[in-house]
Amino acid sequence: MARLIEELRKLPGIGSKNAQRLAFHILRSNGEDAEALADAIRNLKAKLQLCSNCNNITDVDPCVYCASPTRNQRLVCVVEEPTNIATIEKTRSYNGVFHVLHGTLSPLHGVGPEHLRTGNLLARVSRGDVDEVILATSPTVEGEATAGYLADMLRPARVRVTRIATGVPAGSDIEYADEVTMSRALEGRREM
Amino acid sequence: MARLIEELRKLPGIGSKNAQRLAFHILRSNGEDAEALADAIRNLKAKLQLCSNCNNITDVDPCVYCASPTRNQRLVCVVEEPTNIATIEKTRSYNGVFHVLHGTLSPLHGVGPEHLRTGNLLARVSRGDVDEVILATSPTVEGEATAGYLADMLRPARVRVTRIATGVPAGSDIEYADEVTMSRALEGRREM
Repeated sequence: MARLIEELRKLPGIGSKNAQRLAFHILRSNGEDAEALADAIRNLKAKLQLCSNCNNITDVDPCVYCASPTRNQRLVCVVEEPTNIATIEKTRSYNGVFHVLHGTLSPLHGVGPEHLRTGNLLARVSRGDVDEVILATSPTVEGEATAGYLADMLRPARVRVTRIATGVPAGSDIEYADEVTMSRALEGRREM
Repeated sequence: MARLIEELRKLPGIGSKNAQRLAFHILRSNGEDAEALADAIRNLKAKLQLCSNCNNITDVDPCVYCASPTRNQRLVCVVEEPTNIATIEKTRSYNGVFHVLHGTLSPLHGVGPEHLRTGNLLARVSRGDVDEVILATSPTVEGEATAGYLADMLRPARVRVTRIATGVPAGSDIEYADEVTMSRALEGRREM
C-alpha cells in the first residue's frame, strides 16, 4: 500500500492526501478494474512509440496522420510537442501532416539544436517529399529562435518555409494588445 | 455639497462613498486647486474638438499627427476609438497617420454605417492623398464587419487596403490559442 501511494504521488498534481485517496479507491474496487488500470499503464509504455516519419506519439508506425491517404502529405506543420497537434486539429482547417520537434531551442536550459528531433524532417524535405513546411512553434523567445534555426536549416533544400501569424487574437479588443503583438500585427498586415 | 457629490458619482468607477471623499477633499483643499480643477473640466469640453481631417480628439485642428511633417501622410491607419491611437503609438514602429471611426458597425445596437465617421476618410482617399489604408479595427465580430464594410467602401477608389494580422499573441504558447485564432494564424502564415 505504501509503495502504491508513493508511486501515485509522483504524478503531477497528486499530493500525499490525494495519493492516499486513490490508493484506497483502488483497494476497494474490484480486481478487474485494478488489473485493467495496471495493464493500461504498462501498455502505454510498452506499445507507444514515436512515428519514424514525424516523431508523433503513436501505437502504429507510421502514425495515423503520416498513413492517411486523404491528407496532404506534402504540407508539413512543425510543432514543439505532440499535444500541439491537438491544438491544430481542433481548428478543423488544416489538412496536411505534422512533424514534432519534442522541444525548443533554449540555450539557458542547455537545449541545443542537437536535442531537437530534426533529422527525419530534413530527410523528408531533402527527398523532395515536401512542398511547404509551416513552422508552428510558439511566438515565444524559444519558439522564435527554433523557427529561425529551422528556416536556416531548410534553406539549402529550397522548400517553401512559412511561419504562422503573430497578431491580435480573434475576438479580442486591440486596446488589450501589448506593444510587441500590436507591432507584429501591423507588420504582418495583409491585403484585403 | 450634495450637488457636487451627485455630479462626481456620475463618473465611471466612482461610487457614493468615493464621491463623498472626493467632495470633502475639494472642500479642504485651497481655493486655487479647486478653481484649477473646475477650469480644466470646463476647458476640456470647450476647447477639445475633432480633427477635421482624421476625427482624432485634439485642441488644435488639424491634430498633431495630421500636421506632422515627419509622418507619412499617405499611410492611414483606421481605428475604432481615439484611445486606440495610443495602443498603436506605443509600438514605436508606426510612422503613418490615423483615422478615427468613433465606433464600429453593430446592427444589434442600432449602429449602422451612417453612424461611423467615414466621410473625411473617403474624401482623403478620393483626392488621391493616400497610398495605403490599414484597417486596425479589433478582430471582434463588430470590428471585422466594420473592416469588411470599409474595404468595400474604398474598393472603387483603387487604394491599397490592408488588415492587421490576427494570430497567436507574441510571447504566448500556441497550446493556449483558441480554434479561431489558431486557424487564422495558419491561414495568415507568411514566407520566412
